[in-house]
Amino acid sequence: MDNGDGPKKWGFQGNAELNASSISVRGVLNRVYANLDKDDKRPTIPLGRADPTEFPSYQTTRLAPDAVANAAFSYNFNCYAPTWAVAEYLSKDFPYQLSPDDVYLAAGCTQAIEIVVSVLARPNANILLPRPGYPQYEARASVSNLEARHFDLIPEKGWEVDLDSIEALADENTVAMVIINPSNPCGNIAETARKLGIFVISDEVYSHLAFGSNPFVPMGVFGSIVPVLTLGSISKRWIVPGWRLGWIVTCDPNGIFQQSGFVEGVKDYLNITSKPPTNMQGALTQILKHTKEDFFSKIINILREASDILYDRIKEIPCLICPHKPEGSMVAMVKLNLPLLEGIIDDVDFCMKLAKEESVIVLPGITVGLKNWLRISFAIEHSSLEDGLGRIKAFYHRHAKKE
Amino acid sequence: MDNGDGPKKWGFQGNAELNASSISVRGVLNRVYANLDKDDKRPTIPLGRADPTEFPSYQTTRLAPDAVANAAFSYNFNCYAPTWAVAEYLSKDFPYQLSPDDVYLAAGCTQAIEIVVSVLARPNANILLPRPGYPQYEARASVSNLEARHFDLIPEKGWEVDLDSIEALADENTVAMVIINPSNPCGNIAETARKLGIFVISDEVYSHLAFGSNPFVPMGVFGSIVPVLTLGSISKRWIVPGWRLGWIVTCDPNGIFQQSGFVEGVKDYLNITSKPPTNMQGALTQILKHTKEDFFSKIINILREASDILYDRIKEIPCLICPHKPEGSMVAMVKLNLPLLEGIIDDVDFCMKLAKEESVIVLPGITVGLKNWLRISFAIEHSSLEDGLGRIKAFYHRHAKKE
Ligand SMILES: Cc1ncc(COP(=O)(O)O)c(C=O)c1O
Ligand SMILES: Cc1ncc(COP(=O)(O)O)c(C=O)c1O
Repeated sequence: MDNGDGPKKWGFQGNAELNASSISVRGVLNRVYANLDKDDKRPTIPLGRADPTEFPSYQTTRLAPDAVANAAFSYNFNCYAPTWAVAEYLSKDFPYQLSPDDVYLAAGCTQAIEIVVSVLARPNANILLPRPGYPQYEARASVSNLEARHFDLIPEKGWEVDLDSIEALADENTVAMVIINPSNPCGNIAETARKLGIFVISDEVYSHLAFGSNPFVPMGVFGSIVPVLTLGSISKRWIVPGWRLGWIVTCDPNGIFQQSGFVEGVKDYLNITSKPPTNMQGALTQILKHTKEDFFSKIINILREASDILYDRIKEIPCLICPHKPEGSMVAMVKLNLPLLEGIIDDVDFCMKLAKEESVIVLPGITVGLKNWLRISFAIEHSSLEDGLGRIKAFYHRHAKKE
Repeated sequence: MDNGDGPKKWGFQGNAELNASSISVRGVLNRVYANLDKDDKRPTIPLGRADPTEFPSYQTTRLAPDAVANAAFSYNFNCYAPTWAVAEYLSKDFPYQLSPDDVYLAAGCTQAIEIVVSVLARPNANILLPRPGYPQYEARASVSNLEARHFDLIPEKGWEVDLDSIEALADENTVAMVIINPSNPCGNIAETARKLGIFVISDEVYSHLAFGSNPFVPMGVFGSIVPVLTLGSISKRWIVPGWRLGWIVTCDPNGIFQQSGFVEGVKDYLNITSKPPTNMQGALTQILKHTKEDFFSKIINILREASDILYDRIKEIPCLICPHKPEGSMVAMVKLNLPLLEGIIDDVDFCMKLAKEESVIVLPGITVGLKNWLRISFAIEHSSLEDGLGRIKAFYHRHAKKE
């Protein structure tokens, strides 16, 4: 690249690892948004991100901004270490007690992923990732030169982990497997990981946002079978994804993370990375300890109803199949029946045209590893959700293949 | 590593790059702190970190926590993009106008460094770093497999950049050079970088904390000579290092960062990393626009007096030489005259024994690239500074070589 009048080229050149890692929910959605038709006067329906912050029904509990304001005014942010609060919060569901030393704060689950993947990476190592998954794992593995291998979740079995494919993928260079929990069957996953000698990373960013028949089982419960790293944050349960407060927790009563040097690696990495702001840390204890049950149950009810709406409306759209009714989280995976459509090449094409023609934003499944699927967030106002799904139905009818 | 009863070893093994990168101010100071004598009842004097938060004289302006509280309560954090505020704030000192599109927010200057280094890294590339410098650059270069090459700053010339050594180090794989600005001579540095075809990264975390005879010159002023990345944060000027609000600014009226794909790289990287909390971002505009001059001048006066105290007291300690009276920032580099000491091997040994015997924490110079120097922070209460330097003097007398 010559700047025109300089004596020499500028040294910069793209970074292949970074380019390879540039698949992110944010990045893909930006491209979908860019396709919106400015002349469409209808409101844009955002079904792409699991971020309901802009919708009044999902407003966080008043206690949360209060806690931040209090922490900001206290001028003393180190009074009560929030690692205690996280250990207590998680231990409620555990057969053993977590200690504050098991907890490392991170700037949201996003940074927790970055830290864990960076510390696990070493030449020739690989990590097993679920498909569908969350692209931040692939992205950070790519940045750290850690090979990603994918195992399948089986839609017909409620997205159960395919344990056979895990055994087939793992070798002596496999460092860990990732599950996004709620994930079944947790106990068997732990046994498999133990047999293979690999750590389990359990992404529990959606913990407690469960409204199906199965209760949520934290993977750390099986920490004595296999060392488990639990990643979490307040982003989803408190609906404050912008606040960037999360954690890495070593669930490992046998102390294997400590002995193996992994903990040392995390501490080293924390020294060269940015921590969550102290005044946000200061708010965490209050938020974790004092949020009322009402708030949680209100949100769960809204999400349950939203998932019902989604499931029922999808049934009316022939080109979409939802093999498993969502039992938690804020998103559903929906399969595209492409042969029923005319002139739609794949999931990306579907989402691009849908944005342009209907001002509805949906995430192409390829972003999370499933080509020709869609990931639809239902965490928006019910009326908007109905509106969005109605527009998708209209889109289908316009593009349906003629007999 | 065998867990004792498992059928197989656990796959984890340390990561060489990460280990090589584990030199950090925080990490080294943790080791120095570990050497404190618990029986010493005197207060520990922390001269290691440039972080005066705990001292009443350095309390941030009341407007700052007010702004955070307001942002937390507003429930609307996207009203006025803080990138505007950063562009306006920096443009005051510029011959041209920065645009909000030149600004990328980061979680403090720490994350700004991480982002810039990650985006610049590619196989076989190298980056030129100052000695003394700031170890976060070395650490992140190591994590990204970017080769670090060091050029010297000349103590006798007020830590001026040795331009000849830069020319000798650079080759066609050099992507950028880093300066920690205030740094002289800025204009000549720009010309040299232009000739070599490398970007300039100007770390201006200490901008405006200048109290010498030379005014502070932002490197971005020379952006039309050479593309400059200005890194900064509110950590030092507002004395809120825990708040994690910083920025990367492309100072480049010729648009070379844009054309070369660097900007695209930054955007991609921002999609896979954690941003500063939205409610902290919400506070940034108020903080940058409305802080009163009084606050700044009060802090500058306290720092000037502190640096005078340091300089005068160091003169009374024969084994320490301060070749250049600090004219800004919160730290001074002081040379150890080791031959005057008995039984002290090097700077690390000096700091370890000083912590143990006198409960005074000082950073070994090797941490910032200068073996057998010390980096002393003077940003503490004047009385504590006097106390600390008195103890260093006593330490010297106890360890002075007998004639
Ligand atoms: C599975 C999963 N993990 C991690 C994250 C990131 O969480 P956070 O917002 O706390 O950074 C998300 C966000 O959507 C997610 O869906
Ligand atoms: C030269 C330099 N750059 C960057 C930083 C990190 O700045 P921040 O606290 O905004 O992350 C420091 C902190 O001491 C520093 O001295």
